[in-house]
Amino acid sequence: MTTSNSISAAPDSLGHAAFDMLRQLSAISESDAFLCRRYLTPEHARANALVGQWMRDAGLEVSVDPLGNLIGRTHGGNTNVPTLSLGSHLDTVRDAGRYDGALGVLLPIACLNACRDAGVKLPFNVEIIGFGDEEGVRFGSTLIGSKGMAGNLDASVLDVNDVDGTSLGEALEAFGLPKANALRAKRLPEDVSAFLEVHIEQGPVLESENLAVGVVTAIAGASRYAIEVAGLAGHAGTVPMSLRQDALTGAAEMVLAAETLANEHDDLVATAGKLEVANGAVNVIPGSVTFTIDVRSGVDQIREEAIEALRSKFEDIATRRGIQAGWSKLHENSAATCDAALSEQLANAISATGRPVRHLPSGAGHDAMAMAELAPAAMLFVRCEGGISHHPDEDMTVEDAQAAGEVLWTFLQTFDVQSLNADGAN
Amino acid sequence: MTTSNSISAAPDSLGHAAFDMLRQLSAISESDAFLCRRYLTPEHARANALVGQWMRDAGLEVSVDPLGNLIGRTHGGNTNVPTLSLGSHLDTVRDAGRYDGALGVLLPIACLNACRDAGVKLPFNVEIIGFGDEEGVRFGSTLIGSKGMAGNLDASVLDVNDVDGTSLGEALEAFGLPKANALRAKRLPEDVSAFLEVHIEQGPVLESENLAVGVVTAIAGASRYAIEVAGLAGHAGTVPMSLRQDALTGAAEMVLAAETLANEHDDLVATAGKLEVANGAVNVIPGSVTFTIDVRSGVDQIREEAIEALRSKFEDIATRRGIQAGWSKLHENSAATCDAALSEQLANAISATGRPVRHLPSGAGHDAMAMAELAPAAMLFVRCEGGISHHPDEDMTVEDAQAAGEVLWTFLQTFDVQSLNADGAN
Repeated sequence: MTTSNSISAAPDSLGHAAFDMLRQLSAISESDAFLCRRYLTPEHARANALVGQWMRDAGLEVSVDPLGNLIGRTHGGNTNVPTLSLGSHLDTVRDAGRYDGALGVLLPIACLNACRDAGVKLPFNVEIIGFGDEEGVRFGSTLIGSKGMAGNLDASVLDVNDVDGTSLGEALEAFGLPKANALRAKRLPEDVSAFLEVHIEQGPVLESENLAVGVVTAIAGASRYAIEVAGLAGHAGTVPMSLRQDALTGAAEMVLAAETLANEHDDLVATAGKLEVANGAVNVIPGSVTFTIDVRSGVDQIREEAIEALRSKFEDIATRRGIQAGWSKLHENSAATCDAALSEQLANAISATGRPVRHLPSGAGHDAMAMAELAPAAMLFVRCEGGISHHPDEDMTVEDAQAAGEVLWTFLQTFDVQSLNADGAN
Repeated sequence: MTTSNSISAAPDSLGHAAFDMLRQLSAISESDAFLCRRYLTPEHARANALVGQWMRDAGLEVSVDPLGNLIGRTHGGNTNVPTLSLGSHLDTVRDAGRYDGALGVLLPIACLNACRDAGVKLPFNVEIIGFGDEEGVRFGSTLIGSKGMAGNLDASVLDVNDVDGTSLGEALEAFGLPKANALRAKRLPEDVSAFLEVHIEQGPVLESENLAVGVVTAIAGASRYAIEVAGLAGHAGTVPMSLRQDALTGAAEMVLAAETLANEHDDLVATAGKLEVANGAVNVIPGSVTFTIDVRSGVDQIREEAIEALRSKFEDIATRRGIQAGWSKLHENSAATCDAALSEQLANAISATGRPVRHLPSGAGHDAMAMAELAPAAMLFVRCEGGISHHPDEDMTVEDAQAAGEVLWTFLQTFDVQSLNADGAN
């Protein structure tokens, strides 16, 4: 590797160290058949215990916050500057891969462990956070851990039940955490200088460009709608083409219009993920079709204009075909822009390791999205195989883990909280 | 009404007489909640008994053939010429309307009854057939009654079970008909001069042109396929548009290609009736989609060329998108062309009643399709409301029943078996 002369060279053990921990952690699952580690389950407690032990081995002071987030802190750094936070989540989806989330907790542990072994002293304190819930599988609400830490958790979530009828509040109590303390997970902005999350890309961009890592520009905002297309059912043999009000061909044209619109913009994706023909039969012209549309962009204005453009296009299609298209909003969240100065430091660290800097948006949500409300936040994306995630086939190479480790190692030794603050004051 | 001078004027009671019988027959149903009268059920027997009584009242000799088809014959006509057959089916789909099939049995009864009342003697014998199975609801095989009469029933159908595990052979026995006799329902071509079926259109063409009746040119042939589109699933947020292999947008383009192709041909319809996204989720790019395509035409060559054109278009779409499209044949039947000379006699009868002659294809299958194998066959379509059929909302007016009755009345008095045979020899 290539680094600037002022910092020590990264050890070549970072990738292997992270992979060893990733393998062990992936054995902690609610099922023997597949990986599933939901928030506040006994497996969450076991994961916190195992990762907490690795944190202690790396010289960190370990605690669990009121929401079950695992935190390991260095000590001995300059306490006049706020702590640098690194981290990601320890929960998984059902039938998950082992890298989503865990990489962003375990690779920092490997780095701090290597720092200690190499006698590298950082002039500030660092904490590594293993968030308890990011995926939202158990209580249907994503980012509970990081939202709670950023002070943006709605207290009403405490009363939401899981599939077994256990509320979040009850699950916290069963985990040994008083429900009444839950909102005390909130951190103060002055305590945290910045938040950096390492995460697999969960997309194919880095792989398609033969790059190990990239800097995230923004976490996309998303709008999701269900579109109900109402036409007129009819006999597939007896109704001439000219007299049809086919809900499916109308929906097909709308799905393609969304695709075409997204193709025309760089920072825009649109997906029709579900499409259902009501009472579909091989010999019946569809009278009713419902499909979903998921529109994302790192720039809220692009997303909002896209939705307006689609409303207009769908209306034109419906009018021309003598059918109706009704919209129902399912979900909406704004984009979270990564901090420019922090991202620049991250980009410089990539350059310092001799790698090209690729900026790319994140289409998926991440803890950094919630933590950006608390502190300047940035994300390092790491290539994964085929862009596959949320699936047991999720995979990445130990070489890419090493590359990300080298970037993180360099970032830690070049992190400049002053320039960050100066920039932030601009 | 206007008729040629040589024949007696049709009574104005035909529509009401048919409607009165249609109403009474519709009360015979397997369910109190909706109309359902399947083949060889006790309700089939009750329908045969009721309609048989009406046949006797009209002076017909009534029998039930070895497949449960109800037959009523006049006597006293010229026995040197074969019998003219009129008819349609007495079975219904589940939750049916009352006109589909039954109109083509009961309107001829009303006509022959009126002939007797008016002292009109036809110079040939006529039979009215109430086919036991056309819809194929009970044994999954359509046109059992008319195929059996035409001698085209495959004996293997006798061993097909209904949902309760009763085979067709067993159902015949329970109906009082020896299974061993089933294939003896076959008629000889020399016994039947022609077959005419009166049927509601089950489509919107006549209504859209403000016409009561029309002459069917051909009963469309149909090809049905399931198309399995294989793309690559992915995260709706993380996979850029340019790297997607979206099975749903690919399928949407194929569905529209089929619609466009059918729009370009007069005698062609194409319908995608089912479309299913495997594991569809709002935030997942569809990796697998299956849809059905139903292509029909009165001209087999047009249908076959359309299928070939779609194979080529779908292949182009799949190749361009990096996806695959696999075809599985579900069903195929050839078109049955109505007899030109018989249809001309029917068209002349329409003209004689002062109505314009509209020729149109039938997109749905009918008993005439099977009977065309036995004798020259023609069909008179009657307008129905909104083209709706196979639904309790199926409706038509008594005025249109009267119009069809006047055409049938005129046809019966002008039917010329000699010109038919002469034409048939050409």
